[in-house]
Amino acid sequence: MSELVKVAVDAMGGDNAPAEIVKGAVNAVGADSRVKVFLVGKEPVIKEELKKYTCDTTRLEIVHAGEVIETGEPPVMAIRQKKDSSIVKCMYLVKDGQCDALVSAGSTGAILVGGQVIVGRIKGIERPPLAPIIPNVNGISLLLDCGANVDAKPSQLVQFARMGSIYMESVIGVKNPKVGLVNIGVEEEKGNGLTKETYPLLKECKEIHFIGNVEARDIPMGVADVLVCEAFAGNIVLKMLEGVSDALIGKIKAGMMSSLRSKLGALLVKPALKRTLKSFSTEEYGGAPLLGLNGLVVKTHGSSKAIEIQNSILQCIAFKEQNINQKIKEQIVP
Amino acid sequence: MSELVKVAVDAMGGDNAPAEIVKGAVNAVGADSRVKVFLVGKEPVIKEELKKYTCDTTRLEIVHAGEVIETGEPPVMAIRQKKDSSIVKCMYLVKDGQCDALVSAGSTGAILVGGQVIVGRIKGIERPPLAPIIPNVNGISLLLDCGANVDAKPSQLVQFARMGSIYMESVIGVKNPKVGLVNIGVEEEKGNGLTKETYPLLKECKEIHFIGNVEARDIPMGVADVLVCEAFAGNIVLKMLEGVSDALIGKIKAGMMSSLRSKLGALLVKPALKRTLKSFSTEEYGGAPLLGLNGLVVKTHGSSKAIEIQNSILQCIAFKEQNINQKIKEQIVP
Repeated sequence: MSELVKVAVDAMGGDNAPAEIVKGAVNAVGADSRVKVFLVGKEPVIKEELKKYTCDTTRLEIVHAGEVIETGEPPVMAIRQKKDSSIVKCMYLVKDGQCDALVSAGSTGAILVGGQVIVGRIKGIERPPLAPIIPNVNGISLLLDCGANVDAKPSQLVQFARMGSIYMESVIGVKNPKVGLVNIGVEEEKGNGLTKETYPLLKECKEIHFIGNVEARDIPMGVADVLVCEAFAGNIVLKMLEGVSDALIGKIKAGMMSSLRSKLGALLVKPALKRTLKSFSTEEYGGAPLLGLNGLVVKTHGSSKAIEIQNSILQCIAFKEQNINQKIKEQIVP
Repeated sequence: MSELVKVAVDAMGGDNAPAEIVKGAVNAVGADSRVKVFLVGKEPVIKEELKKYTCDTTRLEIVHAGEVIETGEPPVMAIRQKKDSSIVKCMYLVKDGQCDALVSAGSTGAILVGGQVIVGRIKGIERPPLAPIIPNVNGISLLLDCGANVDAKPSQLVQFARMGSIYMESVIGVKNPKVGLVNIGVEEEKGNGLTKETYPLLKECKEIHFIGNVEARDIPMGVADVLVCEAFAGNIVLKMLEGVSDALIGKIKAGMMSSLRSKLGALLVKPALKRTLKSFSTEEYGGAPLLGLNGLVVKTHGSSKAIEIQNSILQCIAFKEQNINQKIKEQIVP
């Protein structure tokens, strides 16, 4: 048997901690014998939650952390001062090599800062992008950067494109993934200063399958597997995807309740609609990796339920077994 | 009777020209006796279309233009060289004071360039933003800038906020409209260089009702009446709104066709669903004004049908009667 993939899980992070986090961890351990989980957080609380389940305790360990970093706290300060917080302890487990990866639904800011300051960047990587998977009508795409680096430079976007291609190919299994530059027009000369400078660099880059500019309108149509942009644009893409979906689904549900006729119809379409909407929900996929670090840091939604935590933990197996960081080092670092 | 509002309409612009444009113009003339339309384009073609309708010809005139600017043409060159094009002729009708406004579904680039070069900016206005109306769950918002000025400066965003407020209050009728800065977090210190510099300027601006940063996720929820951003971000907001809606509606329709049960349900919910989706379609509202010019330039969707052309023409009445440009001059210009 090959070595276990060891994942530190922040039991205190997110709106549904600790219950859903602990449940997700237990389910992940049950679902795949290659994984070992370290539940990091307040031991008595975690123990209480674990009473609800039976599970292989040789692959589920508690690591006590007395503090919690709240979502609103200034991240740099929090990481520096709360040494006994679950996020910081997760980070050190990865940094010290006791774990291969960490999963947290906690403060995005603290995870971004902790990832860079504690886990640390792979030498030669300028900035680590946060790379969520987003749904499209035909499947999924990887969107990076989505929160870590506003006002990024063209050379950084090229690294995002290359790391994203490796991740999409090796972890998600998309052969020769199509890379698109998020822009306001498809023509090469369109865009702002950043995209105009980045386009020719991506075009020259032999290691990726660059398909040119992608307009936001075509992102949900799935025209590209890897979507490259700086974090301000990426955040808008991600949040509009979530916001428009929620708004529209809310409107549709309300519309269906507007008459007796439509209420009857709603009862009949409900199962089919539920399946459809599930495939188009950003919460159905694993968390977002912060790529280019010495170890894997995965950020999941603040509202993560057990299924997302489980998926995020299992995602770490492919990341380790496919030697993503080794590939990044060999292929990208100058 | 007060003076007629004279609107030049580009009969050759857009995917559905000339048929839908001419139809929209005829309907507008029929709908409101305060408006006179000048249909600009190839006279024989327009005449042929007009045969389909009966209408008050004292308020519908043809202005011949022998050329057409195509969507793919480089805009600066097209505006300079195609003096006999429908867009350029519309622009001169406004510049020369023969018309108060123009409506075109043609090349966005050519309209932006022509608006600035031919119609000209109001003195003191740094850059004219393109300001489409977008739907939200509770009503509508004005999004500006949405195509004209990438890499904009903070002072320009402040002008966008002020012009947007005037437009929203006087043309759309929203009292004391809430102005939000599109950003990646709600806290004042969040964002990129541009938004961080713009936030305090908007906060100090006494003439608007600034509510702070707005995350993209909350845009479809209708948290702000006026959404301020530079054109790269604005384009992504608009195009994601359209793209996600289309993708999701496509998925839902396909999902409803997946079983006999759901097909039956679909028949029952169809009328309610249609009403719902109509209120959330960007095409249901008038065109996007290019604010801050010496006259009104309205850009409608390339795919505009007669109803959008009609709405856009009628929108020009409020714009003129409310003296928007006079208000912009008095209130904004330093």
